[in-house]
Amino acid sequence: MNLPSVFEKYRAEIGVEMRSALAAYRSPLYDMLRYHLGWIDAQGRPLEGSAGKALRPTLCLLACEAAGGDYRRALPAAAALELIHNFSLIHDDIQDDDTERRHRPTVWSLGGKPQAINAGTAMKVVASLTLRRLAGHGIGIEKQARARLMLDESCLRLIEGQYLDIGFENRLDVTVADYLTMIEGKTGALIATSLQMGAVLATDDEATLQGFRDFGINVGLAFQIRDDVLGIWGDEVKTGKPVGSDIRRRKKSLPIVFALERAQGEERRALESLYEGADVDDEGVQRVLGLLEELHAREEVERRAAEYRDRALVGLEGLILSPWARDSLREMAGFLAEREF
Amino acid sequence: MNLPSVFEKYRAEIGVEMRSALAAYRSPLYDMLRYHLGWIDAQGRPLEGSAGKALRPTLCLLACEAAGGDYRRALPAAAALELIHNFSLIHDDIQDDDTERRHRPTVWSLGGKPQAINAGTAMKVVASLTLRRLAGHGIGIEKQARARLMLDESCLRLIEGQYLDIGFENRLDVTVADYLTMIEGKTGALIATSLQMGAVLATDDEATLQGFRDFGINVGLAFQIRDDVLGIWGDEVKTGKPVGSDIRRRKKSLPIVFALERAQGEERRALESLYEGADVDDEGVQRVLGLLEELHAREEVERRAAEYRDRALVGLEGLILSPWARDSLREMAGFLAEREF
Repeated sequence: MNLPSVFEKYRAEIGVEMRSALAAYRSPLYDMLRYHLGWIDAQGRPLEGSAGKALRPTLCLLACEAAGGDYRRALPAAAALELIHNFSLIHDDIQDDDTERRHRPTVWSLGGKPQAINAGTAMKVVASLTLRRLAGHGIGIEKQARARLMLDESCLRLIEGQYLDIGFENRLDVTVADYLTMIEGKTGALIATSLQMGAVLATDDEATLQGFRDFGINVGLAFQIRDDVLGIWGDEVKTGKPVGSDIRRRKKSLPIVFALERAQGEERRALESLYEGADVDDEGVQRVLGLLEELHAREEVERRAAEYRDRALVGLEGLILSPWARDSLREMAGFLAEREF
Repeated sequence: MNLPSVFEKYRAEIGVEMRSALAAYRSPLYDMLRYHLGWIDAQGRPLEGSAGKALRPTLCLLACEAAGGDYRRALPAAAALELIHNFSLIHDDIQDDDTERRHRPTVWSLGGKPQAINAGTAMKVVASLTLRRLAGHGIGIEKQARARLMLDESCLRLIEGQYLDIGFENRLDVTVADYLTMIEGKTGALIATSLQMGAVLATDDEATLQGFRDFGINVGLAFQIRDDVLGIWGDEVKTGKPVGSDIRRRKKSLPIVFALERAQGEERRALESLYEGADVDDEGVQRVLGLLEELHAREEVERRAAEYRDRALVGLEGLILSPWARDSLREMAGFLAEREF
């Protein structure tokens, strides 16, 4: 499954907008942001390209264009969304003690946790200031305020989700329902807002905005559930993460939450004892993989990702879209639910 | 020197506004915010009153009233400023590894650093959302946007200052000029913005706004320099900090920066060796206090606080103010530069 062509269509302009949004910020603090974004190396030397797929800005521009707008007017919103996502990654790496992201040392592992906290929060504020660039594209102040409210609210949902996720670490009684509430915040909110914010810059029709938001919630959940599958069964070459890495770190991802909810007797005790201790070793990883297989966890979880994708697709039927827009959104939904990377 | 009466005048209404701004946020994440603000104890039981002097909201309301406005219309701005200040305190305690603030365990020492990072960032976002309450006081969308821009920009200056402050920890070559740049960001920006934001909700006259901002920068610097004096020579009963605590933690506060810049020969080598190592012990604290006395550091630093206070007072001459407003601002400037707590 290849990256949908809309990623390629918007990539260069997203990159230009983001670099331009950060251009005025020159002090060394902001070099930590540029490092995280993959624009410079640890010595401050420029790098080609950028890190990540730029999923959220791509969704924002696609929604704007699909809702009948000129996607170029939404570029500052797209950049702000990507900055919010990256603020959350910088803090997430601190919180999870992760030393690597995208095959590079994390910001905190280079600059220390105190300064990385500053870098993350600065990224959050720069995102907010970036929205002001919408004025330069003729977006009125009322609409700017609405976009800003969406951004702030999704940011709060994201933090609430992150709070739940960290709270799950020491619990064995997390249910699938708890998990879904958590990812709706941690992942779903910003993805749904990416689509809604793109659409709001193209149209005032509330039913259309809600349609894009609903599509976003569903593909956001499918995306995160697929992420959980890749975190356990993904191909290391494609994902950049070692196989079983989420098991090793005892992450309460959906396959594990499902297994903990479903397992009985002997299986349950085995899972609990593996998830009670410190990090899981190689033998433990194999044991967990075996238990997940016995419980058909992978099928169950993939079924759920497909279910959210299907809900997203059904929701699209209610929107008035050009053939290109409909195809692009359908392709996106399929990619997010079934991607290998 | 007593607390100026304006603190008493506005205190109750600031408290009501802040509690009301947070009322809609019910999940346990937000209890960490309420705990930090002194509204509940670690078990979630309600506490009387609140923590802190509420300096920034008081300055905001005073500026609004002094510039001819109804201070009640500025209450959401005042609350937002106090929330930004408290976001920075939560993160600051994590960054400095401080286990106590205002005689209570810090947020991170109760809930762990990962969740305290979330609490601080959530406080920041809630501050931004709180500004929306200005609409309920008849403040138009243009003015709201201007207040928000001021808040975002001061927040970025604050983070830049915090970044510099942390960077100073391992340097012995910090100059007084470096120090002033740092506190202009870390402390001065939000205090200046508190005054400017209060004024902008009362008047459109740019010269008046600039006058309040300049007053804020000068009293902000005086306030921080006085804080540095209290951190070394303050009365433990009044400040809540043990005498010499800033020396023990090797903080690059102004008396030390001045001494490092001024000391020569033997004195310089003694200071450097004390500030090169780990935390300073009791004997070291006495040695540093002796060196500061020989270098007349306290007089020098108090002279500077008085100088910024005087600049603030001279600036007031250029503003058209009622006698009450002029007296209140003068009293405030004096208090911030000379307070004992």
